[in-house]
Amino acid sequence: MPQDKQTNRRIVLASRPHGAPTEANFRLESQHVPTAGQGEVLLRTVWLSLDPYMRGRMSDAPSYVAPVGVNEVMGAGTVAIVEQSNNENFTPGDWVVSQSGWQDFAVSNGKDLFKLTGPVLKHPSWALGLLGMTGFTAYMGLLDIGTPQPGETVVVAAATGAVGSMVGQIAKLKGCYVVGIAGGEEKCRYAEQVLGFDRCLNHRAADLAEALKRYCRDGIDVYFESVGGKVFSAVLPLMNTKGRIPVCGLIADYNSTESSPGPDLLPQFQSAILRKRLRVEGFIITQDYGHRFGEFFSQMSQWVEQDRFVFREDCIDGLDNAPETFIGMLEGRNFGKVLIRVAGDKP
Amino acid sequence: MPQDKQTNRRIVLASRPHGAPTEANFRLESQHVPTAGQGEVLLRTVWLSLDPYMRGRMSDAPSYVAPVGVNEVMGAGTVAIVEQSNNENFTPGDWVVSQSGWQDFAVSNGKDLFKLTGPVLKHPSWALGLLGMTGFTAYMGLLDIGTPQPGETVVVAAATGAVGSMVGQIAKLKGCYVVGIAGGEEKCRYAEQVLGFDRCLNHRAADLAEALKRYCRDGIDVYFESVGGKVFSAVLPLMNTKGRIPVCGLIADYNSTESSPGPDLLPQFQSAILRKRLRVEGFIITQDYGHRFGEFFSQMSQWVEQDRFVFREDCIDGLDNAPETFIGMLEGRNFGKVLIRVAGDKP
Repeated sequence: MPQDKQTNRRIVLASRPHGAPTEANFRLESQHVPTAGQGEVLLRTVWLSLDPYMRGRMSDAPSYVAPVGVNEVMGAGTVAIVEQSNNENFTPGDWVVSQSGWQDFAVSNGKDLFKLTGPVLKHPSWALGLLGMTGFTAYMGLLDIGTPQPGETVVVAAATGAVGSMVGQIAKLKGCYVVGIAGGEEKCRYAEQVLGFDRCLNHRAADLAEALKRYCRDGIDVYFESVGGKVFSAVLPLMNTKGRIPVCGLIADYNSTESSPGPDLLPQFQSAILRKRLRVEGFIITQDYGHRFGEFFSQMSQWVEQDRFVFREDCIDGLDNAPETFIGMLEGRNFGKVLIRVAGDKP
Repeated sequence: MPQDKQTNRRIVLASRPHGAPTEANFRLESQHVPTAGQGEVLLRTVWLSLDPYMRGRMSDAPSYVAPVGVNEVMGAGTVAIVEQSNNENFTPGDWVVSQSGWQDFAVSNGKDLFKLTGPVLKHPSWALGLLGMTGFTAYMGLLDIGTPQPGETVVVAAATGAVGSMVGQIAKLKGCYVVGIAGGEEKCRYAEQVLGFDRCLNHRAADLAEALKRYCRDGIDVYFESVGGKVFSAVLPLMNTKGRIPVCGLIADYNSTESSPGPDLLPQFQSAILRKRLRVEGFIITQDYGHRFGEFFSQMSQWVEQDRFVFREDCIDGLDNAPETFIGMLEGRNFGKVLIRVAGDKP
């Protein structure tokens, strides 16, 4: 079902998931296209970003952001085109990044929009990836919390995912030895041969901990955590004294519904933090680093101009495919940054 | 058995403990007093510091410092008097802090000695507590990692212990609301009435988590961790967004011999780190902050001159009582900083 200019299709949260989300937790609705009031603009969504953190917002457990309400539109970052403007800062045809969510059209007063200019217009979806929240997360988590030094060993979970692929490439630019962990041999080959990681390990390998140890002969100085679970358990014993663990996600645990059986691994983790004097720090990019976006954007734009990065997008056509695509991403079925192409680029 | 000048009594590690140490893990030996060679000094121990970290050094598990070898003297910080000197920097009668361990006499080349001068000479044992490693641990862990702001809530485990009592008092000086957790009603009264904590909670209370929640109505911004175990479990749900957890010890776990039964609390901790963007950081005072001792000593000396601190010492007479006292400390039987008075202060 393609986008049309009379109808606003939107996907709402139909019910809260218990465990892994299913398509029944989402509902596609159609409405009239909203009208831009005074000072407002009407946006038409072109690209919709799907990200693991959205699983958290589907639940109403206490969290750092308010959950999406039942019957409300699923939230998301989008790249959109200004269709109508009653705001002097925007002109029809402008490209913007917005938080307009899983729908075709939205109205904004302009305050939450980021207008795209310069080289990113050659590839607007990069404003959600390489040059957007994804790249920003990788950049700040790795450089500000991870503080990698040349020659150190950096391990990256979800190595071919949107954030992980950037973390590893930035770490290589900084002169580190980079080991990725990814789901499947194809992804591992890609990390080594295309992304330029030194090594990449399949997390489905039976002997994950042993293999990781062979790959990290000098231990691990920085572990960029976005997964949790068994990958973390393999990493922890290898962490070096004064190691750093930026925590940007825990996708392995997002769908868990009950406390895990024993043994209790918490004392081991605490003991490692103490004995190895680890620094473990969670961060939420927009809230912790929003004020430093300019610094990131300027550095990353320069790197992109120099063609220093490979950034793979896993693009799916059609807003109605968003739920299935999102569910698949939580299972690791994606390969690269997940985007929904809601409409063609042409007006 | 008192100190005499012909004999060096020393306590060695007889065997490595499995679980809680017993007196059988220690052995008291007598030797001739060693002789100071060229450039060396002979030290006579007056005060011996007993600290929980020593439990770690009795094991040979991988750790941040080499373990004490079996049949070697137990290591420890001491306050000693220079008895003989072949080193131009020291004169007989000088007071020094050394790492001479659980024994009456030791020889040093002077490089690891810290000479006591000024006000601390009024109370030499303070060089092991208030103005020594204990105070330094509290000061750096709280201020550098915990970074408490006025009005924030600071929770301190082992509140009447050597480090905890200092952490709480420094936090009060910084304008924080301070809640201690201690073992027993007497210690709690002392923390509130003598140390000036706002509240103190008995960790033996049946409803620890609920009681702590009542005491920390605005949540917890800084938790100074030296305990682990059930105290940590009560604290974690109350941590505020952007909370800080300096980890200087885990006394509840030091004697554990096997992995804990379930449920596995690790995912909960990881999830809290992410959702609340916590910073959790282990530190070892000498290794992480040795270069900043001067800064601490100068500030703390000023506070001590102004009589801003209460510092309770739990002093036991006689080197031969060190093993029993140490074992009791690991069980929380001490009340304040544990010191062995190995000899009288007079030459």
